[in-house]
Amino acid sequence: MIRREIPSFKLVETELSYSFLDIGPLSKGHSVIIPKYHAQKMHELPEEYLADALPVARKVALALGCEDYNVLQNNGRLAQQEVDHVHFHVIPKPNAEEGLIIGWPSKKADMGELKKLHEELVAKL
Amino acid sequence: MIRREIPSFKLVETELSYSFLDIGPLSKGHSVIIPKYHAQKMHELPEEYLADALPVARKVALALGCEDYNVLQNNGRLAQQEVDHVHFHVIPKPNAEEGLIIGWPSKKADMGELKKLHEELVAKL
Repeated sequence: MIRREIPSFKLVETELSYSFLDIGPLSKGHSVIIPKYHAQKMHELPEEYLADALPVARKVALALGCEDYNVLQNNGRLAQQEVDHVHFHVIPKPNAEEGLIIGWPSKKADMGELKKLHEELVAKL
Repeated sequence: MIRREIPSFKLVETELSYSFLDIGPLSKGHSVIIPKYHAQKMHELPEEYLADALPVARKVALALGCEDYNVLQNNGRLAQQEVDHVHFHVIPKPNAEEGLIIGWPSKKADMGELKKLHEELVAKL
């Protein structure tokens, strides 16, 4: 991905991140931010790379000038990650058809189960 | 959102961010990170709040222990933002049915148009 796309359409570059226009865009201006550290998933990235990614996304979003957009980062095949290097999408949403399509199958949580899960997580944090 | 959810199910808190379990989850462990700064959209956040959000998301993802998950942040009604305070979702994707459902209507970009857009953006960066 890096080799194919960056030479032509690079946007912001910092010491820790690149960004560039996606060549298979969901909408005009669809851009990608990638940390300059090889990891497949977000939780494998060192903190400084994580801290750099969103400020770069912000600069890209400001240049795009889009008001409605999604920031998306996918981890693993089930979650639709297709390139095994962490990347953050900035995807303008100009109308219902273009840009990211989101399905939101939310459920009201069982409060007892949520409380139990919360206790388990707090113990790990 | 803050008042309703944080008292019960808070996860990581830093000087700049809160995180907690979503009470209308898309999957078990669905969590939300919110900057302690009022802005509706990602590009309106000061840099230090942006820099803090993903390291918090990382801690939450590690506690959740999920291998497949999406990180999502929506800006504007068209992009499905429902609460007007920037928030980042960490959504485990345990199987095809639960978690975030993604539609990906990508197109091969017209290279001439992409080149023109790239020149316009670079002039703004």
